[in-house]
Amino acid sequence: MSRYQVDEATPEEVARERATYEPLAQVVRELAEASIRTEVEADEVEAAVADLRDVVERLRKRQLEGSYGLRHSTAGGGTRPWGNAVVGVRNPVAPPLDVRRDPTGSAESDFHLGAAYEGPPGLVHGGVAALILDQLLGEAAGAGGKPGMTATLTLTYRRPTPLGPLHGEARIVRTEDHKTWAVGHIADAEGVTVEAEGLFILPRWARERTSGKAEPAEAERPDRFE
Amino acid sequence: MSRYQVDEATPEEVARERATYEPLAQVVRELAEASIRTEVEADEVEAAVADLRDVVERLRKRQLEGSYGLRHSTAGGGTRPWGNAVVGVRNPVAPPLDVRRDPTGSAESDFHLGAAYEGPPGLVHGGVAALILDQLLGEAAGAGGKPGMTATLTLTYRRPTPLGPLHGEARIVRTEDHKTWAVGHIADAEGVTVEAEGLFILPRWARERTSGKAEPAEAERPDRFE
Repeated sequence: MSRYQVDEATPEEVARERATYEPLAQVVRELAEASIRTEVEADEVEAAVADLRDVVERLRKRQLEGSYGLRHSTAGGGTRPWGNAVVGVRNPVAPPLDVRRDPTGSAESDFHLGAAYEGPPGLVHGGVAALILDQLLGEAAGAGGKPGMTATLTLTYRRPTPLGPLHGEARIVRTEDHKTWAVGHIADAEGVTVEAEGLFILPRWARERTSGKAEPAEAERPDRFE
Repeated sequence: MSRYQVDEATPEEVARERATYEPLAQVVRELAEASIRTEVEADEVEAAVADLRDVVERLRKRQLEGSYGLRHSTAGGGTRPWGNAVVGVRNPVAPPLDVRRDPTGSAESDFHLGAAYEGPPGLVHGGVAALILDQLLGEAAGAGGKPGMTATLTLTYRRPTPLGPLHGEARIVRTEDHKTWAVGHIADAEGVTVEAEGLFILPRWARERTSGKAEPAEAERPDRFE
């Protein structure tokens, strides 16, 4: 069962895991793009499919029972949201975004969206913009020490977002007990294309965990949920 | 340059393209999940990466210049949104959703989200729920003959959405000129987890196209944008 998992991975162990699995996710991203764009003949595609099935088989020989979850090290290895659909370095569905978090409660990222994120022709899928903004607003809340799960999210599409290089940013605008409100946007070279505002709420189970009843609160406290 | 492309693909040609490329996207989806979950040793991962790079190379020998775009056949082949990030059968980032559209202005889908769509541990990423609902609301609008691009989208998260089998549906609630309002939700076996409402607007270029100035309006009229 996937869960918020606390371990004692050292920085060296984390670096080794990342060096091993990150290139795998990266080449699968390239395959995803190639799957959409290739125009090679049917027999060549068939041969590729056979080779890929063989690799799947080999990778499945030993694997996690469920999803990656979220791992947090108490030995200096940091938090690994590596299966996350937006920032997960082991997840080929994720672009992945490299997010810079600021403890004042903001987050930003420069990223590139290719053919796999298309909605209308040549444009970023409106829902992909929502996906990325949900993550960025959540990261801003977490960076400011007010992590939470999304309660509401409102997107306003100012104009189409082209596939290609993009910028996203978000910041906390208000907090109240376990509630955090954040705003953000995605922009291309010409300016803002999509705006978002959201409310994030710290779940009850996390409040109980951080009340320090059973475990060392500081080390185990999640600074993110996604 | 990707665009809304009109061609004369026959149903047979479309079926052949689908039979060739759909299994490729499918095995890349399996690879994406394996990339997240595998625990095989570093040397086995390295060997897999080398093999995958070789396949990427082969698939890239002949490929589209940009993204897939949206193709519409005037010869009975239907519309192919095959690169789409939610429903694209050639896009490994898409689950993909198989959407049933009803001309009264509704759309629904039963689908499965695995490890690649994770946000909080064991749960669907809030932004992935938004991505899927954006698509479903847009499909409902298009199914009712009122296609449009997303102008606003509001998500309300009632409770966490577990990874696994899910259901989504959407319907038009109001239309006014080029504007269409739709609502929808995602549900698991216990009921609704996320609700959405959105406004979709027919873009100016599509209005001009459908005014029938230069080309046969009916055959070329998009019934979707994503």
